[in-house]
Amino acid sequence: MPPSPIRKLVPFAEGAVARGVKIYHLNIGQPDIETAPGFIEAIQQYDGKVLEYSHSAGLESYRRKYAAQFQERGIKVDHNDIIITTGGSEAIIFGMMSCLNPGDEVIIPEPFYANYNGFAQMAGVKVVPITTHIELGFALPSVSDFEKLINERTKAIVICNPNNPTGTLYTDEELMQLRDLVLRHDLYLFADEVYRMFSYGDKPHRSILTLPGMEQHAIVVESVSKIYSACGARIGALVTKNKEVIAAAMKFAQARLSPPTLEQVGAMAALDAPKSYFEHVRAEYISRRDLVVQALKQIPGVICPKPGGAFYCVVQLPIDDSDKFCQWMLESFNHNKQTVMMAPATGFYATSEFGKNQVRIAYVLNKEDLHNAMECLAIALQQYPGRTM
Amino acid sequence: MPPSPIRKLVPFAEGAVARGVKIYHLNIGQPDIETAPGFIEAIQQYDGKVLEYSHSAGLESYRRKYAAQFQERGIKVDHNDIIITTGGSEAIIFGMMSCLNPGDEVIIPEPFYANYNGFAQMAGVKVVPITTHIELGFALPSVSDFEKLINERTKAIVICNPNNPTGTLYTDEELMQLRDLVLRHDLYLFADEVYRMFSYGDKPHRSILTLPGMEQHAIVVESVSKIYSACGARIGALVTKNKEVIAAAMKFAQARLSPPTLEQVGAMAALDAPKSYFEHVRAEYISRRDLVVQALKQIPGVICPKPGGAFYCVVQLPIDDSDKFCQWMLESFNHNKQTVMMAPATGFYATSEFGKNQVRIAYVLNKEDLHNAMECLAIALQQYPGRTM
Repeated sequence: MPPSPIRKLVPFAEGAVARGVKIYHLNIGQPDIETAPGFIEAIQQYDGKVLEYSHSAGLESYRRKYAAQFQERGIKVDHNDIIITTGGSEAIIFGMMSCLNPGDEVIIPEPFYANYNGFAQMAGVKVVPITTHIELGFALPSVSDFEKLINERTKAIVICNPNNPTGTLYTDEELMQLRDLVLRHDLYLFADEVYRMFSYGDKPHRSILTLPGMEQHAIVVESVSKIYSACGARIGALVTKNKEVIAAAMKFAQARLSPPTLEQVGAMAALDAPKSYFEHVRAEYISRRDLVVQALKQIPGVICPKPGGAFYCVVQLPIDDSDKFCQWMLESFNHNKQTVMMAPATGFYATSEFGKNQVRIAYVLNKEDLHNAMECLAIALQQYPGRTM
Repeated sequence: MPPSPIRKLVPFAEGAVARGVKIYHLNIGQPDIETAPGFIEAIQQYDGKVLEYSHSAGLESYRRKYAAQFQERGIKVDHNDIIITTGGSEAIIFGMMSCLNPGDEVIIPEPFYANYNGFAQMAGVKVVPITTHIELGFALPSVSDFEKLINERTKAIVICNPNNPTGTLYTDEELMQLRDLVLRHDLYLFADEVYRMFSYGDKPHRSILTLPGMEQHAIVVESVSKIYSACGARIGALVTKNKEVIAAAMKFAQARLSPPTLEQVGAMAALDAPKSYFEHVRAEYISRRDLVVQALKQIPGVICPKPGGAFYCVVQLPIDDSDKFCQWMLESFNHNKQTVMMAPATGFYATSEFGKNQVRIAYVLNKEDLHNAMECLAIALQQYPGRTM
């Protein structure tokens, strides 16, 4: 794996800080939102004398309560359908290792979360990208486009919904088309649903676990990182009704003994976080999104589809090269001693040369900072030597 | 991976409990020792509002303090030579994935910690066992025995010192021989040193990081699980002076974002645990070991080398089949409504049929319980239908 475009920027960011320039970090998915009520408190109140392993699938009490929450959402999952993992990352790794053999292929709509490459590499699996387009709001490609890529080595499709990096929320129609495709070709459908609480439409997020007939095909990745703003907890989950997949994943789970115990205690408590917490967070992100999208629309030559979920957008800029532009922003630009760090979108495309005039913006700062960051970006685009208009 | 012999016993253990039989659990490495002072307290005092990701290599403050502790032990390691991992398990996985390609071979003295099989499978690596023998106290095999197994695909040797499951502590001579062998064939030497604090000789445990000339070859796996009795924390470390290995492992570390944050806070505090804690723990384990070894010596037909470290021993019993015997202990035997659960040693050998008359005993209970457990075992060996003397 080559270093990601974002990691290449780190030395330039350090240089900017050394020169006294304030950086607005829109490059990472570490939100500033407070961790959900109850999470840290439950850990602080832990009174055990010995910090023991949990069950390899996670504390049974946590899984039972978690399953009850799924059932409240109308998803028929019981505690044996859930393996608690060390972050959503481990859930994807276990899922890939359990469902695919080395040399098998997974189709993933690009741009996609760059770490899927690392997970696929660990599982010895080949990632086959299928391109989505900014002009179409990064909608899922057509069934026939998928079918052009399906061969005898294809074993799974991986989606992230709502999507990191694009913020796209797939429609019911898109999900049902995917379902038909998956059933017709007897594939697994992985859905990374770690941003499901960040869904800004009128209807609640739809999990692939609710798609009819998909019991043996749907593998869902969950995480407490974003939902409860507890990225440092490293608690995720692999959820599937497919008993064979659970049995295979349990072997990997047992080999690594257990996920962290204390953070499961915190995550279990956070299941009781009041609705008002999530409503507040959702309203906050919607107003941040609206601020960012509004500001971007006023910059000539910028294209930004309005994201339906998560807290990211992929934006097209009137520039020659997003890697160079993001580096220039840190190395050579400042506006009132301020600049912005963004993720060049090239890192989210498996197809080389794609995303060269796109960046990912994570709207994870408060509105005042976001306002200032958008101002910086607008001025930078007037000054950047490689601007294309 | 087939289910391990110990997991096959779980339903029988549940049956025994259902019949009101008390089980002495000598089958697992979950100690009853209290977690080191400061560990849980530091977490309870955590007052952050947002539980954030740590650095992918672990909190820098923790790594710096950890490195200082290495230096106090006379081991020249700085914080850039340490990657904090999610348990020792992840350190081994990252190490194997970084040093070996799929299809490469690692030589591991057997009996060995069964989960190494799972880690090797994840890395696509072939485990080549080299047998150690109970009559020789499970000493390391000779250099020539190792060399018979080395071919062009051999890339590493993995040792666990002190050893799980045998409790063997390797001598300086053994380690130096291994060093010469590794340098001559340009291999990596992995040492799982998670039991280093449980070393019962006159001299302190010797890390392979102190073997001269091994800077580019030595890969050490550490963990807080046993040292601080904090198994549920899932904090370990990969430690090596080899910069290329660190760089490769960092890619895997970055893909999974970070190890758990709060438990790093706990582990950092535990670095200050007073010497008296470790002296107390060590004295306790020595007296437990002595109790177990003494009791076993008095049972006819039992062979038990005196372990030099960790809290395990592999014991030869006058029985036909350790899987059957361990099952019979749970299913058909009790002495005053008590019985013992042990790990059949077959699960620790890669060579099939080996270990059939051996069990692993973990002396992780208090002395009264251990005394009762040994009494049960002695009586069971008189009654077991498959006894061989």
